[in-house]
Amino acid sequence: MNLLDTIPALRKALDAERAAGGTVGLVLTMGALHEGHLSLVRRAAAECDVVAVTVFVNPLQFGPHEDLAAYPRRLEDDAALSEGAGASYVFAPSVEEMFPDGTLTIVHVAEVGDGREGRARPGHFDGVATIVAKLFAVAGPCRAYFGEKDHQQLEVVRRMAADLSFPVQIVACPTAREANGLALSSRNAYLSPAERAAAPVVHRALLAGRALVERGVTDQAAVGAAMAEVLATEPAARLDYAEALAGADGKVRLFVAARIGTTRLIDNLEATAP
Amino acid sequence: MNLLDTIPALRKALDAERAAGGTVGLVLTMGALHEGHLSLVRRAAAECDVVAVTVFVNPLQFGPHEDLAAYPRRLEDDAALSEGAGASYVFAPSVEEMFPDGTLTIVHVAEVGDGREGRARPGHFDGVATIVAKLFAVAGPCRAYFGEKDHQQLEVVRRMAADLSFPVQIVACPTAREANGLALSSRNAYLSPAERAAAPVVHRALLAGRALVERGVTDQAAVGAAMAEVLATEPAARLDYAEALAGADGKVRLFVAARIGTTRLIDNLEATAP
Repeated sequence: MNLLDTIPALRKALDAERAAGGTVGLVLTMGALHEGHLSLVRRAAAECDVVAVTVFVNPLQFGPHEDLAAYPRRLEDDAALSEGAGASYVFAPSVEEMFPDGTLTIVHVAEVGDGREGRARPGHFDGVATIVAKLFAVAGPCRAYFGEKDHQQLEVVRRMAADLSFPVQIVACPTAREANGLALSSRNAYLSPAERAAAPVVHRALLAGRALVERGVTDQAAVGAAMAEVLATEPAARLDYAEALAGADGKVRLFVAARIGTTRLIDNLEATAP
Repeated sequence: MNLLDTIPALRKALDAERAAGGTVGLVLTMGALHEGHLSLVRRAAAECDVVAVTVFVNPLQFGPHEDLAAYPRRLEDDAALSEGAGASYVFAPSVEEMFPDGTLTIVHVAEVGDGREGRARPGHFDGVATIVAKLFAVAGPCRAYFGEKDHQQLEVVRRMAADLSFPVQIVACPTAREANGLALSSRNAYLSPAERAAAPVVHRALLAGRALVERGVTDQAAVGAAMAEVLATEPAARLDYAEALAGADGKVRLFVAARIGTTRLIDNLEATAP
C-alpha cells in the first residue's frame, strides 16, 4: 500500500495505473474509518483493479461552530484498515497541500442541497461539492463509491458530477449498521455509553416511518410526525428533522436527524408503498 | 479535422491521443472565430501534438438582457478556420448535449470575478467558470489557451483551475488587434461602419493611461480619469468603466469597457512604471 500526501503524486500514480490498463476505484473519506467506509473499499476492490482511499478532514464542509478541531484523526489506523480492505493507495494530504492559498472557488449545487442537511448546516454542501470536484479533478477517470448513510450528500455529488461531466461513475452503497440498527458513523465515537444505548432510537424512528409507508400511508407529513413521535420517547434525543420524501420512482425516502446529547446523528431508509 | 458533437466522443478522442503519447492543446471559444482565436489555435498547435477547439455559445454566461440569441453562429466557417490554423478536433455540442437537464451546479470564483465585468454583468463569471470547469473535466489533461483580451476571465479561469486542481496548464496569449488598435472580438461584427471607425477610441484611452503610468503617475484614480477623458472625446462612445489596477508584480493593468452605439466592447493593456 502506498501512502501519498501530494496532489501530483496521486495524479501520477493513478494515471500510471490507467495507462497500464487498470481501472480505478475511489473512496473519499474524512478518516476515522469504520466498517461503513471499509465496506465501500471492499466493494471498490471487488469491482476495480486498484483502489485509492482519500483521507482529508475538509475544513470547507464544517460550519464555524461545528466539530472541525475535535473530528477524530488517526491516519495510521486508517492506512492499515484501508490496506486490509484492499486499497492500493491512501491519499492523506495536509490542508496546506490542498489549499495553499485557501480557495476562492466554490462549487454550489442548487435545490438538491437546499433542504434537510443543507438547511441545518449552511454552506456544508458547498464545502462537500467543492472538495469532491477537486478530488475528482485530481483522481481522473474512475468509479467513486459513496455510502447511502449520507444520502443527500450522495445526491449532491451525483448531480455535481453529471452537471460538470466529470469522468466519474458514482456508485451508491448501502449503509452499514450495528446489530441494534445504529448507522455506523465516525461521530458515534463522541457518544457516551448511555448515549450509545439511546442512539438506536434514530433507526427505530425510521422503521416506524417505513411501516406506515408499507401500510399505505401516503401523507408525508403524517409519516414525518410518526417518526418524530418515536424520537420523542427517548429523553436523550432531540429531533432536528424527520421527513418523508417521495421519489420519482415511487419509492419513499425517510430521513431523520437528531442530537443524542451533543452529538448530531443522521440516518435514512428507503420504503416502498404497497 | 474531426468535427465532434458529443461529450463521450471528445473524451474518447483526447484520451486516445494521450494514450498514444500525444499532448493536447485546448482552445475554448463561442465560435464566430477571428484572428484572435486563430492566434490561440496556432500557438496551441505549435506547442502541443493535437489541438481541440470547442465552439459553444454558452447560455450560462449571458445575462437576461444580453445578446445570446443574436450572438453570431457560423460553425462551418469556424471548423474550416480551426483546421487551417492547425486544429485536429472541433467540438461543437448542442445546448441539449451539454445541459440535458439544465444545470443545478454553479462554479463561483469570489474576489477575482467581483469587480469590472463581474459588476457590469452579474452572473457572467459564474457562467464562465462553470462551463470552463465542465469543458476541463471533459477534455482531461491539457494545455488551455486563453486570450488576454478577456483579462478578468483569464484570471477567473486561472484561479478556478488552481483551486479545483484541474490537470490543465493555463496559457495566456496576447490580444490580437487591428492596425488601428481595435482589439479583435466577435462582437465587432455588430458595429456599423461609422461605429467601427469610432471604436479604436477604446485602445487610444488605454494608450493614454499607459503613457501616464510610464511617466510615473501612481494615482490610479487619476489614470482612470484620464482614460475616461479620452473616451469622452468620441461622441459614439459611452464609458462603462476605466480602471487602473496595480498588480503584485509592480505592473499596472489598465481596463476600459464602453459601449460604441449599442455594442459593448472591453479591452485592457499592461503598463510598467518607470
